[in-house]
Amino acid sequence: GQPQALPESRVLVLYTGGTIGMKSTDGVYCPVAGYLPEVIRDIPPLNDRQYIEANYAQVAVRPYSLPPVRHMKKRVVYWIVEYEPLLDSCDMTFDDWIRIASDIKKAYHNYDGFVVLHGTDTLAYTASALSFMMENLGKPVIITGSQIPVAEVRSDGMENLIGALITAGNFDIPEVCVYFNNKLMRGNRTVKLDNSALEAFDSPNMHPLANMAINIKVNYDSIFRSDNIAAFTVHENLCRHVGMLRIFPSMTIESVKAFLAPPTQGVILQTFGSGNMPTRRSDIIEALKEAIERGLMVINCSQCLKGQVDVNYATGKILYDIGVIPGSDMTSEPPWRSCAMFWEKTSGMR
Amino acid sequence: GQPQALPESRVLVLYTGGTIGMKSTDGVYCPVAGYLPEVIRDIPPLNDRQYIEANYAQVAVRPYSLPPVRHMKKRVVYWIVEYEPLLDSCDMTFDDWIRIASDIKKAYHNYDGFVVLHGTDTLAYTASALSFMMENLGKPVIITGSQIPVAEVRSDGMENLIGALITAGNFDIPEVCVYFNNKLMRGNRTVKLDNSALEAFDSPNMHPLANMAINIKVNYDSIFRSDNIAAFTVHENLCRHVGMLRIFPSMTIESVKAFLAPPTQGVILQTFGSGNMPTRRSDIIEALKEAIERGLMVINCSQCLKGQVDVNYATGKILYDIGVIPGSDMTSEPPWRSCAMFWEKTSGMR
Amino acid sequence: GQPQALPESRVLVLYTGGTIGMKSTDGVYCPVAGYLPEVIRDIPPLNDRQYIEANYAQVAVRPYSLPPVRHMKKRVVYWIVEYEPLLDSCDMTFDDWIRIASDIKKAYHNYDGFVVLHGTDTLAYTASALSFMMENLGKPVIITGSQIPVAEVRSDGMENLIGALITAGNFDIPEVCVYFNNKLMRGNRTVKLDNSALEAFDSPNMHPLANMAINIKVNYDSIFRSDNIAAFTVHENLCRHVGMLRIFPSMTIESVKAFLAPPTQGVILQTFGSGNMPTRRSDIIEALKEAIERGLMVINCSQCLKGQVDVNYATGKILYDIGVIPGSDMTSEPPWRSCAMFWEKTSGMR
Amino acid sequence: GQPQALPESRVLVLYTGGTIGMKSTDGVYCPVAGYLPEVIRDIPPLNDRQYIEANYAQVAVRPYSLPPVRHMKKRVVYWIVEYEPLLDSCDMTFDDWIRIASDIKKAYHNYDGFVVLHGTDTLAYTASALSFMMENLGKPVIITGSQIPVAEVRSDGMENLIGALITAGNFDIPEVCVYFNNKLMRGNRTVKLDNSALEAFDSPNMHPLANMAINIKVNYDSIFRSDNIAAFTVHENLCRHVGMLRIFPSMTIESVKAFLAPPTQGVILQTFGSGNMPTRRSDIIEALKEAIERGLMVINCSQCLKGQVDVNYATGKILYDIGVIPGSDMTSEPPWRSCAMFWEKTSGMR
Repeated sequence: GQPQALPESRVLVLYTGGTIGMKSTDGVYCPVAGYLPEVIRDIPPLNDRQYIEANYAQVAVRPYSLPPVRHMKKRVVYWIVEYEPLLDSCDMTFDDWIRIASDIKKAYHNYDGFVVLHGTDTLAYTASALSFMMENLGKPVIITGSQIPVAEVRSDGMENLIGALITAGNFDIPEVCVYFNNKLMRGNRTVKLDNSALEAFDSPNMHPLANMAINIKVNYDSIFRSDNIAAFTVHENLCRHVGMLRIFPSMTIESVKAFLAPPTQGVILQTFGSGNMPTRRSDIIEALKEAIERGLMVINCSQCLKGQVDVNYATGKILYDIGVIPGSDMTSEPPWRSCAMFWEKTSGMR
Repeated sequence: GQPQALPESRVLVLYTGGTIGMKSTDGVYCPVAGYLPEVIRDIPPLNDRQYIEANYAQVAVRPYSLPPVRHMKKRVVYWIVEYEPLLDSCDMTFDDWIRIASDIKKAYHNYDGFVVLHGTDTLAYTASALSFMMENLGKPVIITGSQIPVAEVRSDGMENLIGALITAGNFDIPEVCVYFNNKLMRGNRTVKLDNSALEAFDSPNMHPLANMAINIKVNYDSIFRSDNIAAFTVHENLCRHVGMLRIFPSMTIESVKAFLAPPTQGVILQTFGSGNMPTRRSDIIEALKEAIERGLMVINCSQCLKGQVDVNYATGKILYDIGVIPGSDMTSEPPWRSCAMFWEKTSGMR
Repeated sequence: GQPQALPESRVLVLYTGGTIGMKSTDGVYCPVAGYLPEVIRDIPPLNDRQYIEANYAQVAVRPYSLPPVRHMKKRVVYWIVEYEPLLDSCDMTFDDWIRIASDIKKAYHNYDGFVVLHGTDTLAYTASALSFMMENLGKPVIITGSQIPVAEVRSDGMENLIGALITAGNFDIPEVCVYFNNKLMRGNRTVKLDNSALEAFDSPNMHPLANMAINIKVNYDSIFRSDNIAAFTVHENLCRHVGMLRIFPSMTIESVKAFLAPPTQGVILQTFGSGNMPTRRSDIIEALKEAIERGLMVINCSQCLKGQVDVNYATGKILYDIGVIPGSDMTSEPPWRSCAMFWEKTSGMR
Repeated sequence: GQPQALPESRVLVLYTGGTIGMKSTDGVYCPVAGYLPEVIRDIPPLNDRQYIEANYAQVAVRPYSLPPVRHMKKRVVYWIVEYEPLLDSCDMTFDDWIRIASDIKKAYHNYDGFVVLHGTDTLAYTASALSFMMENLGKPVIITGSQIPVAEVRSDGMENLIGALITAGNFDIPEVCVYFNNKLMRGNRTVKLDNSALEAFDSPNMHPLANMAINIKVNYDSIFRSDNIAAFTVHENLCRHVGMLRIFPSMTIESVKAFLAPPTQGVILQTFGSGNMPTRRSDIIEALKEAIERGLMVINCSQCLKGQVDVNYATGKILYDIGVIPGSDMTSEPPWRSCAMFWEKTSGMR
């Protein structure tokens, strides 16, 4: 038949952990090694067994295959690498980001696209981190997860995994993206907005890169393409001592000073409104100035979900003048990684 | 194990046709008799084969079973009745509504709930019609369908069918409802809003009756319960000559008169704003008045998606005074069935 | 001071009627000749009396002036022409559209922009009509109105009028637009969505052309600019016998035939879903075909608020094959004017 | 005339500062003492001069009066108390909240309702603080502000002020509320969501208490009413050393410990997802446990805008077990005040 004639697109799935792969035991979800790879082998929309048996019978590590997808010119064949142990996304650290990035680096030339399965709690942090760690990316890296395990009867996991695989295997979107609930969003513009709805993520300051409707609508004008022909690189030498400091009324100078003290090397300030600080708190400004002078990197991001940091306002201006970097329209989750990266990139100059 | 110990809830699925059950051939979707019942037998989230084999091996017509669903106290076992021929929802007529309603009536005491699979194009019309045809309903009747066939790789059909089955089998919601894209909506408050997105339906003047998030959240305060202990009845003696007349600028009196002429017996007026008509068009008012006097039933509904018809406005008042029935906050799809029903109910009095 | 030094932008306001200018008497809103022009003369944000007295004291017809607006490079001076009698938008006809268009034509070279004050009920029809009647438009024509009169304490009228004036006087947006509730939308993509909220209008298939936030954000990429250097023209020779025919289940062939009979010359079909018809209704198809053959123009538009008409579907294809024009993503309010225009433009060929 | 016959409702406006009252000088907004009270005296929708002159000519401190408002049974007469100096909301402290609360307390029996004009940046913090400081409140306290000064041509300030005054003077809503952009929201459920749009605030986990459409729609079922007949009380004895600690990947134990060190007495933990922490970070858990044992109060709130903290999840459970208080569905802005209050209320027990 015609479907078999489709050329293959090869996708690598890094299954780091998260709800999407959990097993429900007496109504409680638990990570169980090997469970996800086993379960999806028998779910027809996620695996075309017949195709695999016909084409990969002799292969040591058998891949999975999406059945042919309407209007898509390639058949997605994918391999799953399961992390051991499976990671609760709450426990993700710099080292885990580095591991994911270097796993992609190592496999970069052998696959057409990458999917990262991840718990939802820190998924947006990881997406942002990866986006800044990866330079001259030329293939899709799609991060997804789910609110309900893929093995449950009612689940957003199947659609999220299918959508991520189709995107990674069929579209020329060389970005780190988050795919969730029929939307493809730029990784470093995404936040976890809702901890209970299936529409858990949003990119409040940017329209999605693609929407899954009856057909798939990609907004190609919004796709970022590096104009640099240099090879794909991963920055692994991260600064690890960064933090987030949320400004609030009557905060004590002691807590600010403690936060800025060594070993802290970078700080995301979560400021009011358009990037504002208490103007009368010269003690805080002074502490920030002193910290910047001894090498700390400070980025100004708003507590508001939508809108930009504007350095034209009086208090934003003060921060700018003492060396605080305006975070533009980035939400707080993305920029703090950015902070780490800037630090690394500029640290050679100091 | 514990799952088998769950009591069963029996659901009857009337598969009337529609995209949800279509087969894709060279990228074109076609209705194929027997295809849907066959396909879903092998999709694990839609059918627990092991359970059926263990419990229904000897049964002539084998049912399907959802696997146990977290937090749900009953296991949903369901039987599918496929209509022959399968109906394109564009072709649905009064007779088809009557058939659906009487099929439910006949099976009423043998099942705990009902699911109707339907094409999306006139799904909201059918939902509204059924809601007015059924009196003293005591069990859930959940209508659903999908934008993409359940047999496709990427599909909203599986989640819609699962959600409809869970609702029909586990909740005490004795209403005709539409279930689509994680929302359960009152049948006669629903409209098809979007012909391409997976979120195709909405109930613009009413919050959903239930939302499917990580958990299922039912708004029990909104559920309608008949306080009548009389038995469930279906009204089948429908008036068939009803029509929808959309008011627009400079419309000709000829088209209005033609529309109101026999055999028309009922008309939904789609008026401006809050139920308004051109006030200077005494010719149209006169034609409506004359039609009402000879027995026509006319209901006033707004062209606006949101808001109510308000008879306090001058032009709405004129219509009210000549006998036009204000349609309250019903959208145009529901009330025209209402029209047919009113007609039937009141026709004995004339 | 500096504000007086701003160059002037001249805007003509055609006040045709509508809630925005009504007077409240015992809680009832009524149109009263001369009331709006009188009231706004004394509302400081709408009229800088001092400026007018200083600069236009000797002028027979005194204009109004917005005070200087932050970041705007021009001061808006405007003249109000009140229609007599004031028009209830429900009563608007082809002749009123022609009057508005020719008033703009006559004044075209004397003003930098135009504002049309209009009742909300048929505002979207007028916006669409004007957009198709005007060819090679080089200046903004902004239509607005309000849900509550500008003279009321709580009113959306003041903000709507101010926003429309600023847009007409300060931006290079040579389109017929609707301005309502801080959004500027393309005229022929706008619908009245809600008859009670202050956010009454939307353009469901297109992002707004501009959003009024703390600053005004214009999406210049979306602005339509004629590449024709021909002079601005108004098409006044409209076909007047157009109608809207909403398809619904079990509609009678009699009502369809009556609707298509002379004097009807053009029809907007409001079809199901993506432009679909009942496929088994060869009687309706036949009637349409016959009508098209004798010269009727028929446009296919969806009943759905969002999405496009797709001629690839079977039933949409049938309509296309008999000569029905696909209405693309236009909502029903716009295209029926389009119908009239097409008719006019092509009628010479028949 | 009839309007004069309306009974009066007396409202006290505390003008603390903020954009709403600023003066624009060369495009820059600045707070200027006395400017707001002067400007609004001459804006007809905000002040019925004729009424004031007729009824309050002899009064030392002349009030302002809204003109009669359609459907409202009372005329709102209001007095403005301007704070000196005017406060930038970024600079608001515990002392300012106490001042506002005690000003309301002192005037409590002389007015029917209260309006607080406030900068938007910390408006939600103040609303939350006041809601917890005030016990057995029996009159409306409506907090508002604006994104653009009321004295500007294009401004949301006028509508916000009018809406707040109408609500404070005409409705029996004995709560601390935020009124903004036609929505009335519960004070301690409100967040600043957008720093540039006019729709700046939202209450993501709760429908608004009232919506301003053509008519005002109050959701009376949602209004909180104390069933305590005790007198209105203000709690002023606040704990001042509270802070917000945002959990993020790889955060250092040093920064956590520094944050929990004296003088800190209360902490809002901004956790992942449904109230989750890194489970492998026993160092952080240990530090929190130790802090709670020495008397610190810790509240668990989610970083997500929507949804609740759920102590059934493993990591939320750990926090609960060591004495962290679950913050339910409160967003981070509200609960940290709550923290201060709990502290005060329970501190007597320690």
